[in-house]
Amino acid sequence: MMGQFKNQHLVQFYETDLMGIIHHSNYLRIFEEARVAWAHSVGLIDYQKPESASYFAVIETQVRHIKPGKFGDLLITYVQARLEGIRIIFEYKLLREQELIAEGRTIHASLSKDLKLLRPPPQLKEIMEKQSWTETWLSNL
Amino acid sequence: MMGQFKNQHLVQFYETDLMGIIHHSNYLRIFEEARVAWAHSVGLIDYQKPESASYFAVIETQVRHIKPGKFGDLLITYVQARLEGIRIIFEYKLLREQELIAEGRTIHASLSKDLKLLRPPPQLKEIMEKQSWTETWLSNL
Amino acid sequence: MMGQFKNQHLVQFYETDLMGIIHHSNYLRIFEEARVAWAHSVGLIDYQKPESASYFAVIETQVRHIKPGKFGDLLITYVQARLEGIRIIFEYKLLREQELIAEGRTIHASLSKDLKLLRPPPQLKEIMEKQSWTETWLSNL
Amino acid sequence: MMGQFKNQHLVQFYETDLMGIIHHSNYLRIFEEARVAWAHSVGLIDYQKPESASYFAVIETQVRHIKPGKFGDLLITYVQARLEGIRIIFEYKLLREQELIAEGRTIHASLSKDLKLLRPPPQLKEIMEKQSWTETWLSNL
Repeated sequence: MMGQFKNQHLVQFYETDLMGIIHHSNYLRIFEEARVAWAHSVGLIDYQKPESASYFAVIETQVRHIKPGKFGDLLITYVQARLEGIRIIFEYKLLREQELIAEGRTIHASLSKDLKLLRPPPQLKEIMEKQSWTETWLSNL
Repeated sequence: MMGQFKNQHLVQFYETDLMGIIHHSNYLRIFEEARVAWAHSVGLIDYQKPESASYFAVIETQVRHIKPGKFGDLLITYVQARLEGIRIIFEYKLLREQELIAEGRTIHASLSKDLKLLRPPPQLKEIMEKQSWTETWLSNL
Repeated sequence: MMGQFKNQHLVQFYETDLMGIIHHSNYLRIFEEARVAWAHSVGLIDYQKPESASYFAVIETQVRHIKPGKFGDLLITYVQARLEGIRIIFEYKLLREQELIAEGRTIHASLSKDLKLLRPPPQLKEIMEKQSWTETWLSNL
Repeated sequence: MMGQFKNQHLVQFYETDLMGIIHHSNYLRIFEEARVAWAHSVGLIDYQKPESASYFAVIETQVRHIKPGKFGDLLITYVQARLEGIRIIFEYKLLREQELIAEGRTIHASLSKDLKLLRPPPQLKEIMEKQSWTETWLSNL
């Protein structure tokens, strides 16, 4: 996964549940951290204009759990993104050192203020076309 | 969806995000509420023995968002469950009155104390075989 | 606590942490559920106008934990509210049957769109003056 | 606050609510991040033995909100800790650059497996006695 964007996450106590592992809903939050960090790094999310997050309204999510993540784990999320029509597709791999913990896919689209789907703005299209994408990441999800 | 188990959820302020709608990770929590309520109602989760939740370790999740859920919405989750080998499959439909808000699928398996996959215990198998299942709920997810 | 507003909460799996009990941050969410239910019941929060929640911006919170709350507990939050200058003060008692689990106090004020403190609107003042208040709930917090 | 332990937190999208700011319950999570990072740095929390977190069961929390924290803010939590009988007291100051966002205090005690209060173990006592403490941090909380 050389060349892909990556983001680090230290698993917090409040992210665990009574099974002693990360609660499954929190993987979507860990993926969001990586997605936002990527979008910020390419200039698509401006923290001063939080409404820019509306480019990435969530349409669909999928997570596959391979190993349980635990309190204190230092996890790395690898992210790739591409545009497909009006939809933006993100894929994620979550690793603890060399070990695959989880993988996922989220699908997004731009949303208007009154929460209707929009075509992606030209700025987003232009940036998305420059992204590298590894075709086969989650072939079997 | 007559005859299917259903569970009610009033959308809380703390479940929203700065887009003014339910944060997407919280749908997995709303589905969990319904899944646990179902499992409790058929005797598979005993609140006095929270380790019984280990029958339902999460292997995979999928959520499709159709309409945004909002603060104060009274949502109904419909749930169906079936056994497929060692995996337990749940499907969900989330409605606000007659309107479909989201649908989802989660896949589970029993986990040992040291977090290894187990065959489902006989009690679970027996109960699962009595469940009704509508084949086509999420055919296109 | 006869005559005080009360709200029910079933403790969810996702509210626990690896100690096997409710994570302490979630008590503020359980209190919020009760506060919002109260505010909705007296007409101060309109779910169709979520900006009405800005009457109750949070200035200060306190929680005292007496017994650990657990997965599956059916908890009752008792709430009382009063106005003190521009501040609205809420007190909470959280019970599992007759047993006191936690108590708390939250202090609120009205916030403008640009997040400045405001005098409470007349409608709020009028409603607050009708509330009963038991002077000594949390005398020693 | 020179010489005090500090911990960095980038405010996530999922930590906001429909007011567009950090949900108040999440300040306790941001403080926990700092407390755990401190406890780990002095050898009191071992990620391989998550039960070590039971030294710090939460007895009481207080948060005072001064400015709203926002999506994308890079916040610094300053922490100080001291022992008082069987109780461990933490104080926090949360800053965005030079601006004070919130301050807080949490009180903790060691808990046995069956959730009873314990005297602090000698190791904890010894480490706590070495901590610096600025008497007047939250004099007026």
